[in-house]
Amino acid sequence: MDDGTFRARLRVFIERSAVRNTILALVILNAIILGLSTSDYIKTNLPGVIYTLDRVILAIFVLEIAAKLYAYGLSFFRNAWNVFDFCVVGLGLLPQTTSLSALRALRVIRALRILSAVPQMRSVVQALFDALPGMGAVIIMLSIVFYVFAVMATIMFGAKFDEWFGTVGASLYSLFQIMTLESWSMGIVRPVMYEYPYAWAFFVPFIVMTAFSVLNLFIGLLVNTMQSAVEAEAEAEFEKLRDLVRSETDQVGEQVAALQGEVQALRTEIRALMEQKNG
Amino acid sequence: MDDGTFRARLRVFIERSAVRNTILALVILNAIILGLSTSDYIKTNLPGVIYTLDRVILAIFVLEIAAKLYAYGLSFFRNAWNVFDFCVVGLGLLPQTTSLSALRALRVIRALRILSAVPQMRSVVQALFDALPGMGAVIIMLSIVFYVFAVMATIMFGAKFDEWFGTVGASLYSLFQIMTLESWSMGIVRPVMYEYPYAWAFFVPFIVMTAFSVLNLFIGLLVNTMQSAVEAEAEAEFEKLRDLVRSETDQVGEQVAALQGEVQALRTEIRALMEQKNG
Amino acid sequence: MDDGTFRARLRVFIERSAVRNTILALVILNAIILGLSTSDYIKTNLPGVIYTLDRVILAIFVLEIAAKLYAYGLSFFRNAWNVFDFCVVGLGLLPQTTSLSALRALRVIRALRILSAVPQMRSVVQALFDALPGMGAVIIMLSIVFYVFAVMATIMFGAKFDEWFGTVGASLYSLFQIMTLESWSMGIVRPVMYEYPYAWAFFVPFIVMTAFSVLNLFIGLLVNTMQSAVEAEAEAEFEKLRDLVRSETDQVGEQVAALQGEVQALRTEIRALMEQKNG
Amino acid sequence: MDDGTFRARLRVFIERSAVRNTILALVILNAIILGLSTSDYIKTNLPGVIYTLDRVILAIFVLEIAAKLYAYGLSFFRNAWNVFDFCVVGLGLLPQTTSLSALRALRVIRALRILSAVPQMRSVVQALFDALPGMGAVIIMLSIVFYVFAVMATIMFGAKFDEWFGTVGASLYSLFQIMTLESWSMGIVRPVMYEYPYAWAFFVPFIVMTAFSVLNLFIGLLVNTMQSAVEAEAEAEFEKLRDLVRSETDQVGEQVAALQGEVQALRTEIRALMEQKNG
Repeated sequence: MDDGTFRARLRVFIERSAVRNTILALVILNAIILGLSTSDYIKTNLPGVIYTLDRVILAIFVLEIAAKLYAYGLSFFRNAWNVFDFCVVGLGLLPQTTSLSALRALRVIRALRILSAVPQMRSVVQALFDALPGMGAVIIMLSIVFYVFAVMATIMFGAKFDEWFGTVGASLYSLFQIMTLESWSMGIVRPVMYEYPYAWAFFVPFIVMTAFSVLNLFIGLLVNTMQSAVEAEAEAEFEKLRDLVRSETDQVGEQVAALQGEVQALRTEIRALMEQKNG
Repeated sequence: MDDGTFRARLRVFIERSAVRNTILALVILNAIILGLSTSDYIKTNLPGVIYTLDRVILAIFVLEIAAKLYAYGLSFFRNAWNVFDFCVVGLGLLPQTTSLSALRALRVIRALRILSAVPQMRSVVQALFDALPGMGAVIIMLSIVFYVFAVMATIMFGAKFDEWFGTVGASLYSLFQIMTLESWSMGIVRPVMYEYPYAWAFFVPFIVMTAFSVLNLFIGLLVNTMQSAVEAEAEAEFEKLRDLVRSETDQVGEQVAALQGEVQALRTEIRALMEQKNG
Repeated sequence: MDDGTFRARLRVFIERSAVRNTILALVILNAIILGLSTSDYIKTNLPGVIYTLDRVILAIFVLEIAAKLYAYGLSFFRNAWNVFDFCVVGLGLLPQTTSLSALRALRVIRALRILSAVPQMRSVVQALFDALPGMGAVIIMLSIVFYVFAVMATIMFGAKFDEWFGTVGASLYSLFQIMTLESWSMGIVRPVMYEYPYAWAFFVPFIVMTAFSVLNLFIGLLVNTMQSAVEAEAEAEFEKLRDLVRSETDQVGEQVAALQGEVQALRTEIRALMEQKNG
Repeated sequence: MDDGTFRARLRVFIERSAVRNTILALVILNAIILGLSTSDYIKTNLPGVIYTLDRVILAIFVLEIAAKLYAYGLSFFRNAWNVFDFCVVGLGLLPQTTSLSALRALRVIRALRILSAVPQMRSVVQALFDALPGMGAVIIMLSIVFYVFAVMATIMFGAKFDEWFGTVGASLYSLFQIMTLESWSMGIVRPVMYEYPYAWAFFVPFIVMTAFSVLNLFIGLLVNTMQSAVEAEAEAEFEKLRDLVRSETDQVGEQVAALQGEVQALRTEIRALMEQKNG
C-alpha cells in the first residue's frame, strides 16, 4: 500500500511538465555538448569539463529511466518511445575505449531523444512509421528484385570487377548506388561495358524497373494520405448535406402535419355539425 | 474417362496449399542456394553440393511444370504467370558452359518465381503492369524524341566523340544517361562544348523536354490512380446520400399517405352520414 | 469557280485517310533512313541510295505542303501543326554543306513529323503545352532568381573560376548544372570553397530555393490536372444526385397531387350532396 | 495639418501607377546594368558609364524609400515587402572596396526587387512562403537527424577524412551533399569504406531516412495544396446541391400549401352551406 502510494506519487512527479521540460532541456544541452566535444579547441583545453558534463547528464537520464521503470513496472516497455529511450540511454553505459570510435559515436544517438521528448516530433515520426505498412508489398518486391539482380551481377561481372560485384553484398551496395543514379554510367556501367559490351541490357532495365517501383511506392503512399484527407472531407460534406436534407424535409413534413391538423379539424367540425343537426 | 479423372485429381493435387507451399519453399531455398553459389568459400569447399541441390530443385520445377501442362493442357499458357514460370524454368535447362557467364546468370532469374508463387506479390506486379497502358502515348512520344535526338547527336558529335555518339545505339545510351542527369555536364556536355561551344543549345533543351515528359508521365499515372480512389469514394458517398434522401422522402411520403387515409376516411364518413340522413 | 472546285477537290484528297497514311508511312520511312544514314556501313557502300531516297521523300513533303497551302490559302498557317510541318520541311531545303554538321543534323528534326502526323501524339503534345501557362509565374520567378544568382556568381567567382563563372552565360549554365545536382559539390562547390571558404552559403541556399521552386511548379501542375479530373467527377456525381432528388420529390409531389385530387373530389361530392338535399 | 496634407499627397503620388511603373522600369534597367557590368568589353571601355548609371539608379531608389518612409512613418515596416526593399537598397550603400567582391556582389540582390515590384511575382513568392509552416515539423525533425548524424560522422570518420568530416560544419555540408545523392558513393562512401568497411551501415540508412523524410515533406505539401482545392470544389458542389434540394422541396411545399388552401376553402364552403341550411 505504502509502496503503491510512493509509485503513484512518482508517476505524478515524472509526468509533471516542469520535470519533462527539465529533461528536454538536458537532452538539448546534451546534444550541444556532444557537438562541442568534436571541436579541437574543446578537446585540448577543456577535455574534463565536457566529459564530466556528459557523464552527469547520462547519470540523470539513467535515474529518470530507473524512476520510470519503478513507477510503471513492465508496462514501461509497452510504449515504443520508452523502449527507444531505454536503448539510447543504455548505449551510453557501454564501456568507452578510445580505439573504438564507432562505439563512442553511438553515444551521440542519445541526441535523438529530442524526437521522443517533444510531443510534436513524436507525432511526425509516428506519421512516418504509419506510412510504412502500406508500402510493405512494394518494398518486399523491390528486395526480391534487388537480390536476384545482385546474384546475377555477381555471377556475370564478379570475376572482372571484384570491387563492385565481387560478392552478393558488394553487388547489393553497387546496385543501391545505381538505383540512386549516382555515377551509374560514367562510374560503373561504361567501365563494365568495355569488358561486356551488352552490360547495358542488364543495367538499363534495372534502373527503369527500380525507378518505376519507387515511383509506385511513392504514388501508393500519396494516394493513401490523400484518400484519408478526401474521406474526412467527404464525411464533413455528407453531414452538412444530411442536415440540409433533414431540415428541408422536416419543413415539408411540418407543412403536411399542419395540413393533417386542418383536415382533422374539418372532420371534427363536420361531425359536430352533423351531430348537431341530427340531435 | 480414366485419364480425365487422373487429370482432375492432378489438378486438385497441384492446387493443394501444401503443394503450393512446398514449391514456394523450394523457390526460396533455390534463391538462397543461387546466392550461396557465388561465395568463394562454397565454390572451393562444396562445389558439388550446391550444384547437385540446384539440379534437384530444377528437376522438381520441371516436374511441376510438366504436371501442370498435362493437367491443364494448352489452357496452361493462357495464364501469364504460367508462361513466366515456363520460361524461367526453361532457361535453367539451357546448356551451361563455364565460359558463358551470362547464360549461367540467367539461371538466377528463377529466383523471381517468388513473385509468381506468392499471391500478394502477383497483385503488386499486376498493379505495376496495369499502370503501363495509361502511360503508352507519353512513352511512344518519348521514344520518338529520343530517336530524333540520338540521330541528330550522332550526325553532329559522332565524328569527334566516337565513344559517346559514334552510332545511334551509343547516342541512345548516352542520352539515357543524360536524362538520368548522371555526369551529364562534367562528364559529357562540358567536354563536348570544348569542341562545339553551342552544344548546350542541344543538350539543355533535351534535358528540360525529357524531364517535363517524365513529369507528365508521372502525373498522368498519379491522377489515374487517384481518380479510381476518388471515384470509389464518390460512389460510396452517393449511396449514403441516396439512402438518406430516400428515407427522408419516404417519411414525408408516409405522412402524406396517412393524410390521404384521413381524407378518404373523412369522405367515407361524410357519405355515410349523408346517406344515413337521406335514408 | 473552276478554281474553287479544284481547291475543294484538293482538300478532300488531302484529308483522305489513304493520303494521310501514305504521308505517315513516308515520315516513318524517312526517320528510319535518317537513322541508317549515320551507319558507317551505309555511308561507304550505299551513299547515293540513302541520299536519293531522302531527297525524294523531301520532294513529296514539299509537294504535300504546297498542295495544302494552295488548298487552304493563308488559313493554312492558323493551325500550329501546319506551321510546324512547314518549318520542319523547310529546314530540309537549306543548302547542305558537309562542313556544317549542325545544319545537316537539323534535317533530322523532320522525323518529329511523326508527332504531327498521328492524332494521338498530337493530343499528348497538346496536353504538354496546355500545362505551360499554369507554370508561367513560377518559371518567370525562377528565371529572375537564376539571373540574379548568375550575375552574383560572375562577380564573386568569375575572376578565379573563369571556365565556370567567367561570364553571365557561363554562370547560367553552371547554375543549371548545379540545379540538376550534377557534380555540384565534388565538381564545382568544393573546388570553389578552397578559394572562397564561405561559397557554400551561396550555393546551398540556391539549391534549396530552386529545388523548392521546381517542387512548387510540379505541385501546381499536379493540382491543376487533378482538379479538372475531380471537377468532372463532382459534376457527374451532382447530376446523379440531381436526378435522384428530382425523382424522389416528384414521387412525393405525385402523392400530394393525388391527395389534392382526393380533396377536390370530396369537395365536388359534398357540393353535389348539398345541392341534391337543397334541391 | 499642412504636413499631413503633404504626406497624404506624397502617398497618392507614390501609389500612382506611372510612378510604380517608372520604378519597375528602373529595377529592370538596373538588373540589365548589373549584368552588363560583368562583361569584359564594358569593363575596359565604359567603366565610368555603368558605374554612374548604377549610382544614379541607387540614388533614385534611396529617394523612393525615403519618400515612402516619410509618407507612411513607422507603418512602412509593417509590410514585409517594404522591409525587403529597404534591406536590398541599403546593401548598395555599404562601402564598395574592390577587394571584397562578395560585398560588391550583394549589390546584385537589388535585382530581386523585380519580385517585389510586380504584383504577380509577389503572390508567387507569397504562396511559396505560405507553404513553409505546414512543413515546419518535418524540417525540424530533419535538422535534428542531420545534426545527430553530423556529430556521429565527425567522431567516427573525422580523424581520417578531415576534409569531409573534420568538423561538425564540414560533416553537415558533406551530409547535405550525400542527401542530394551527388557523388555520395564514388566520391565519399567508397573511399570511406576503404578505411571503415562498415561505413555503408551509417550512410545507406541516412540516405533512406532523409529521402523518406523529404518525400513526406513533399507529400504533406501536396496534400495541403490539394485539400484546399478539393475543399473549394466541395463547397461549390454543396451550394449547388443546397439550391437544388431547396428548390425541389419548395416545389413540394408549394403543392402542399395549395392543398392546404383547397382544404381551407372546403372547410369554409361546408361551414357556409351548413349555416345556410341551419339559418
